[in-house]
Amino acid sequence: MEKIFSVPLKGGAVTDVYTYSLDEIERELSSYPSLLAVFDDNSSFSYGRPLPEASLVLPHGEEHKNWGSVDAILSKAMDSGLARDSVFIGVGGGVILDMAAFASSVYMRGARCVLVPTTLLSAVDATLGGKTGIDYGGAKNAVGTFFPAEKVLICTDFLRTLPDSEYRSGLGEVLKHALLSADTKLSVFLAEERARILSRDPETVAEMIRLSLEVKISYITRDPEEKLGIRSALNLGHTFGHALESLHDYGISHGEGVAWGVVRALQAGVAIGITEREFAECGIDLFRSYGFADSFSVPEELFGRYFRTIGKDKKKKGGEVRFVLMEGQGRPVLMTLDEDTVRSAVIREA
Amino acid sequence: MEKIFSVPLKGGAVTDVYTYSLDEIERELSSYPSLLAVFDDNSSFSYGRPLPEASLVLPHGEEHKNWGSVDAILSKAMDSGLARDSVFIGVGGGVILDMAAFASSVYMRGARCVLVPTTLLSAVDATLGGKTGIDYGGAKNAVGTFFPAEKVLICTDFLRTLPDSEYRSGLGEVLKHALLSADTKLSVFLAEERARILSRDPETVAEMIRLSLEVKISYITRDPEEKLGIRSALNLGHTFGHALESLHDYGISHGEGVAWGVVRALQAGVAIGITEREFAECGIDLFRSYGFADSFSVPEELFGRYFRTIGKDKKKKGGEVRFVLMEGQGRPVLMTLDEDTVRSAVIREA
Repeated sequence: MEKIFSVPLKGGAVTDVYTYSLDEIERELSSYPSLLAVFDDNSSFSYGRPLPEASLVLPHGEEHKNWGSVDAILSKAMDSGLARDSVFIGVGGGVILDMAAFASSVYMRGARCVLVPTTLLSAVDATLGGKTGIDYGGAKNAVGTFFPAEKVLICTDFLRTLPDSEYRSGLGEVLKHALLSADTKLSVFLAEERARILSRDPETVAEMIRLSLEVKISYITRDPEEKLGIRSALNLGHTFGHALESLHDYGISHGEGVAWGVVRALQAGVAIGITEREFAECGIDLFRSYGFADSFSVPEELFGRYFRTIGKDKKKKGGEVRFVLMEGQGRPVLMTLDEDTVRSAVIREA
Repeated sequence: MEKIFSVPLKGGAVTDVYTYSLDEIERELSSYPSLLAVFDDNSSFSYGRPLPEASLVLPHGEEHKNWGSVDAILSKAMDSGLARDSVFIGVGGGVILDMAAFASSVYMRGARCVLVPTTLLSAVDATLGGKTGIDYGGAKNAVGTFFPAEKVLICTDFLRTLPDSEYRSGLGEVLKHALLSADTKLSVFLAEERARILSRDPETVAEMIRLSLEVKISYITRDPEEKLGIRSALNLGHTFGHALESLHDYGISHGEGVAWGVVRALQAGVAIGITEREFAECGIDLFRSYGFADSFSVPEELFGRYFRTIGKDKKKKGGEVRFVLMEGQGRPVLMTLDEDTVRSAVIREA
């Protein structure tokens, strides 16, 4: 057990991030007098030991990220007699963590929340910064709250049994962080350690998570509620990517969508003269070396639907959707893009 | 239009409270480029003019204070293309305001919120301090958030057409504030101006609302998220009262339940030697002069159910329900009460 970050958040809240072994997690779970542990059917399996008495196992998958699941959590919490000082513990990927945290944020107007990410994506993406939520009306995470977990327990043991596609999904977010970082430390690490990263060498993976979280933390602590336009930069690739995920009815993974979206943002940025060409090319090469750059394109006949989905994006301001583009290393900007620029970026030329 | 309070809240948020005429409210509603106005079928009627284009009229009543109604608000917001900087405007009693505010707090993880109370109860109780929510699993307001409105627009025109029972419900909360006040200004006002208050003389009512809000504000600004045990004092009468409301399937009004609960708390406090006898007697006399003190009692055969409902109270800490009792004027304390004390307070002797 090691505390690797203590992240100061709005209103004096702090999220402490620890690395834990599975045994330490089990001990932690048994230390709370009143708790509800929320798993999905994947994480309950990879946890590999008896679940705490007050537990709920939800079906996995983005299609269950809805009020019905949150309702099940709240209802179980109510039946188990949880109070406002009880602890909701989410153990799983981003879907479970977002929903467990959302449920904890609205139960009695806010109970306690501890998150145990079991996927690479959730370790680097869903656990820090307090974004909670569910999908709603066809839009991802359209309903939710800002509610930071008091603790995040990262356990790389969980990552060993992840399916390749799930691990790749996490790598998509890590690669995104490499571009957003003020320096090239993470980019260089990703380029040099690619073999060890892909073979999931535990120490290499732990270091990659740490470097990736460091970038995320630098953005969220400067803008905890996404009001200053700084934190919004973490949505690099998300506007392009979410709409692709929606087009595929969430049949492609989040990180896969984001990675694809980052490459689109780099290409769009070059096309309108915002992004340094060399930075974009290096970035796209890095994404390509991990197999991300050219994985999808939007068919011409679906572009209308794709573009309308973008119009539903949460990050609208004054009715306009703003994309995150990159000027260069660690220099994001928020911009609107016209339909033709979006079209050129998402439809691959023959 | 007059700004009567500017209430500082957690994290730099401020709720500005204004007195408005109906015309000024109409002008305000037409001033927002993107809004959704949420009414109930009472408030849409007493508004008495064409509703804004993006409006939703929900059925009135506590039995509709559930996710289904919030879902309807969110769904309408989504269909109307609302963004995070759009404004949700709740126009109605506490049920509508709590739900409109809850919906605004979770839409895109937090849109803007303006509240227009149309009942006395909601003017003095539901609009300040950011408590939002719905009933859940048989417990009142068991699911919700803390999310302060940016503006509260108080319009006494709405109060003239209120049914007597609804007006009385508001008076219950006002009387509660009189005991919690550091001074006896509000108590004296309520005793001396009773005739004008009961005949709803507009200026008298406006002054009563102002004095009542002043008390509420003094509690919430010292403890915005109800974490220090100060704000909890505003729940005086609520633990007794909510369980009574639940016993009656919410067939009695909130203020009626609270007022009854305050008298129970005074009696229980005297019984266990916490409350100054003279303070309690004066307080009960004031409540009695408004017809509140002896309105209900819990039948012996329903006491078990009543007591179990109390056990579900949100204000539990470490598994124990804490009641708000009064030592004397403006001096609340939080205490557990044993079953016999509760029994003696709620079952009227023959």
